[in-house]
Amino acid sequence: MTETPPKRATIAAVARRAGVSPSAVSHVFNGRPNVSAATAERIRQAADELNWRPNYASRKVSGQGGRSLGLVIARASDTFGRDPFFMRLVAGLTQPLADIGWSLSLTLVGADDEARVYREWWAEQRVDAFLLVDARTDDPRLDLVGTLGAPAVVLGAPVDAAVPAVTVRDDAAFAAVLAHLTELGHRRVARVNDAPGLAHTQARDRRFAEAAADSGVEPSYAVWDAEAADPVADLLGRVGDVTAIIVDSEVIAAEIVAHAPELGVSVPGQLSVVAWEDSWVSTLVRPRLTALDAPVEESARTAVALLERLVRGDAVTSQTVGGRQLMVRESTSAAPGTPA
Amino acid sequence: MTETPPKRATIAAVARRAGVSPSAVSHVFNGRPNVSAATAERIRQAADELNWRPNYASRKVSGQGGRSLGLVIARASDTFGRDPFFMRLVAGLTQPLADIGWSLSLTLVGADDEARVYREWWAEQRVDAFLLVDARTDDPRLDLVGTLGAPAVVLGAPVDAAVPAVTVRDDAAFAAVLAHLTELGHRRVARVNDAPGLAHTQARDRRFAEAAADSGVEPSYAVWDAEAADPVADLLGRVGDVTAIIVDSEVIAAEIVAHAPELGVSVPGQLSVVAWEDSWVSTLVRPRLTALDAPVEESARTAVALLERLVRGDAVTSQTVGGRQLMVRESTSAAPGTPA
Repeated sequence: MTETPPKRATIAAVARRAGVSPSAVSHVFNGRPNVSAATAERIRQAADELNWRPNYASRKVSGQGGRSLGLVIARASDTFGRDPFFMRLVAGLTQPLADIGWSLSLTLVGADDEARVYREWWAEQRVDAFLLVDARTDDPRLDLVGTLGAPAVVLGAPVDAAVPAVTVRDDAAFAAVLAHLTELGHRRVARVNDAPGLAHTQARDRRFAEAAADSGVEPSYAVWDAEAADPVADLLGRVGDVTAIIVDSEVIAAEIVAHAPELGVSVPGQLSVVAWEDSWVSTLVRPRLTALDAPVEESARTAVALLERLVRGDAVTSQTVGGRQLMVRESTSAAPGTPA
Repeated sequence: MTETPPKRATIAAVARRAGVSPSAVSHVFNGRPNVSAATAERIRQAADELNWRPNYASRKVSGQGGRSLGLVIARASDTFGRDPFFMRLVAGLTQPLADIGWSLSLTLVGADDEARVYREWWAEQRVDAFLLVDARTDDPRLDLVGTLGAPAVVLGAPVDAAVPAVTVRDDAAFAAVLAHLTELGHRRVARVNDAPGLAHTQARDRRFAEAAADSGVEPSYAVWDAEAADPVADLLGRVGDVTAIIVDSEVIAAEIVAHAPELGVSVPGQLSVVAWEDSWVSTLVRPRLTALDAPVEESARTAVALLERLVRGDAVTSQTVGGRQLMVRESTSAAPGTPA
């Protein structure tokens, strides 16, 4: 089935084909301007004909060449595979990386293997920088990248002064949601999350409490239990007499609006549901989800720009991007007993 | 904000710390058995303390070291980001790659840039093999990987004898769907696809025609028009008097079952809908989708195994995996006018 593959072309072969010295070829591909335009063009054509490019690995050894961003995600593959946020993130990273000639090195790991992968990828020079997602308060990766000397940026909440973060401006988001809900007559609102240990979850809990106090809403908190026999029934049994919930995960919000009516809870008649994330999933379910759209692509672009500057040795500071935008759809309406 | 990062440790520093020669360090990490177990242990500990590993780029130059699989997807980022198949595929590739110490190099490109990225990644030795998805009949990438001499495997339908393929066993899938539908009284069934140019689409059209002939069903074909003002209304207007449709894309099937009732077409009362793919999306919509679950994770694992053997220089042949499995849910029921 397979044949001996053709050998990779050498710089010498390209030089012979273009009728120049190997160092002239090297000059053209290193962007040094001591070769005439006509010669440069001839060299590029010879390289194209032979499918030759400067060797990535050799260039890395000499400190040049194509770089790669490491994205190590400590999640089970089914959790990763059903999270529209990660797909938007991966999709959003690839274009800005391609623009600067970097590739994305992606892997999923068990939590136990996380540190090992960071160490190996860095020590082997497989990647030139890391993007940290799902940062926990007191996250061991922050010390680790510091010890390694690896350029790194955290996506989400700032967790450590030494590692720059890209954060979505959320200050006004709870105020916007609660203004929408109080206008509809809601006074008791629960915030639902599925990842209580993450830094951004805890930051949101605090901001929700503040916004609730400002808007005269009685706040409560619930954690999604994916292990429950019927997680939606379990949650609805625990949130008490709230008339609206704000759910961190869009997919969980989608499960709630699809399944609650089958449990005798009408959405939005008896319970209004707001998703803290937005993607195509929000418009696929009925009722369509009222959701907060985050600038995921802008976050990705900003993180790539910071990482490129870090790799060049520039000093950078944390950045805040965009702001979540409330997309009012069908899953929120007047609180029960409120004149519409 | 940033400080001068610590320098990467050298092999000389590891050797000094362990009290051995640099070549002893090299021997341990290259698995050569001429160092005592106690010395090897001391060297590994020194390397750990200094976060040192054999340099990936140097090892590549010498033909050793960590490899990477290139996955170049020629799709717009929003199409990629909303396709549960790709999420399952990326998630499914990472574990078997991690098991053999490879990383995944992923990028999205415009169709114009596809060949350039393959050439550059290969020429720069950024990747060691390619996985080709969305193969077209007469796909220029098949010649390209042949010219480059790059190990490659096609995921989907076999398209070229020279490039091994991993194909999901679909032979029985149409027969299973049509047996399910004819039992429910359906006699006129349309197949809906959204990518008429792809090799696997055309192979499915042929198999659908054969299975329809075998089961006494009148087949018809429709192509999804994403550009229509209301694509679901547009499609329903074109499929004529069929009582059931089989839709290649799960997300499109989900859009149809969610939106058709709003257009006055009840699902499954007037129209039964079957999705040719399955993921969590199928259970998120109401009615839940009857769908064909493909062994995406097994395909990914098989492709990784083939690629590893190709890279080692072994001869490999195309593989067929699993078979699609019909998951009967709520979006199919008796054809109109059929006693249930």
